[in-house]
Amino acid sequence: MREVFQAELKQVGEELVEIATLVHKALTEARQAFLEADLETAQEVIAGDARIDFMQNELDERSIDILALQSPVASDLRMIVGALRMSSSLERMGDLARHLAQDARRRYPEPVLPQQLEETFRRMFDLDLQIIQGVIQILETRDMSVADDIYTQKGEVNALHQEVFNALGSDSWDSPVSTAVDVTLSARYLERIGDHGVSVARKVAYLVTGEWTPSATMDRPTGHGHISAN
Amino acid sequence: MREVFQAELKQVGEELVEIATLVHKALTEARQAFLEADLETAQEVIAGDARIDFMQNELDERSIDILALQSPVASDLRMIVGALRMSSSLERMGDLARHLAQDARRRYPEPVLPQQLEETFRRMFDLDLQIIQGVIQILETRDMSVADDIYTQKGEVNALHQEVFNALGSDSWDSPVSTAVDVTLSARYLERIGDHGVSVARKVAYLVTGEWTPSATMDRPTGHGHISAN
Repeated sequence: MREVFQAELKQVGEELVEIATLVHKALTEARQAFLEADLETAQEVIAGDARIDFMQNELDERSIDILALQSPVASDLRMIVGALRMSSSLERMGDLARHLAQDARRRYPEPVLPQQLEETFRRMFDLDLQIIQGVIQILETRDMSVADDIYTQKGEVNALHQEVFNALGSDSWDSPVSTAVDVTLSARYLERIGDHGVSVARKVAYLVTGEWTPSATMDRPTGHGHISAN
Repeated sequence: MREVFQAELKQVGEELVEIATLVHKALTEARQAFLEADLETAQEVIAGDARIDFMQNELDERSIDILALQSPVASDLRMIVGALRMSSSLERMGDLARHLAQDARRRYPEPVLPQQLEETFRRMFDLDLQIIQGVIQILETRDMSVADDIYTQKGEVNALHQEVFNALGSDSWDSPVSTAVDVTLSARYLERIGDHGVSVARKVAYLVTGEWTPSATMDRPTGHGHISAN
């Protein structure tokens, strides 16, 4: 019985890794679609999101079955509850990657971004991809030394997010309002992906160390509003 | 033992109602702060969010204790897992109300909105408040007849969200980019609050009826992008 249970817990962990890997793939493709105005890749991301949703449902149902049949306690119980929460964050990251692909599809054949912001967004995408890679590593190894990298990367995402607002508020901004709307929301999607990544990392850290890192500002959205009124 | 357990389940339900009631209060005040440029009320919402976060943590810890000590199965198990998820949605709704109050604070003494959008946002706030009121009623009574109202109200929120994008894309838009950014994000916050409300209602419906209403479009963000490229 105990062996079956351990195998089940292991499988839950493996499925979290599998979902996180799909999210990484989705964001890699969304990056391509978004930055290169690549319609075909955008369609793949949009169609592929259903698979992430499906896997999350499967994982959640399996976790509830484990709770019902095995009645885990202590750290095993927290691991299962943690998995339910992490799968929800990962699923949401997939949604946000889909939104970015939808932006690309809607503007096609035009790019979403004005040229002046391409580099800033490229770096946000790359940092979010590093964050997800770190999350996968943490889920696989429970080696929490990666967590600090993730928190640092999220700090960089926040700084770039601020840069986007600065560009929107600068006198040199000369793109139409529709572009400002797209830029505002897609920057927020990228920021939220990072937030969810940090949230997953902190949940694993809690499972491993039993200590909650009270970085209250870390996985909270920074909100917006860094354009001074003009 | 069984009686203690039933009392514990009841308490979880009551705490969900309590959190939802705090969220309703937060959004009522955020509405006042946002629409009337009321700094004092904005500060109250911002300061008050910590209480919602705290109550969510308490509820989650209590739920995990119940899982550990009572090993519930079947519908009781699903109720506890559902409570963990609902508390997460409610907490997020509180965050979004806080964001709206932060918008108001940042622009003070100016209003966040251009006059032409005041009525649209007022209606979005009112619909979200009705949605939360419906969620409270469902949590209290398990009477699912309210759910249809909630889904209808969310449809109206989506239509108003679209109206905001139409205004941003129209030739008559003559406000600065910083206003477009605020309008874009705050409309999204209001849309997401409605999404989370629908999500909670659907989870209760699932607990009551055992049937998942596959309204896939209902609690998924509509994304944005209804401004044609120009």
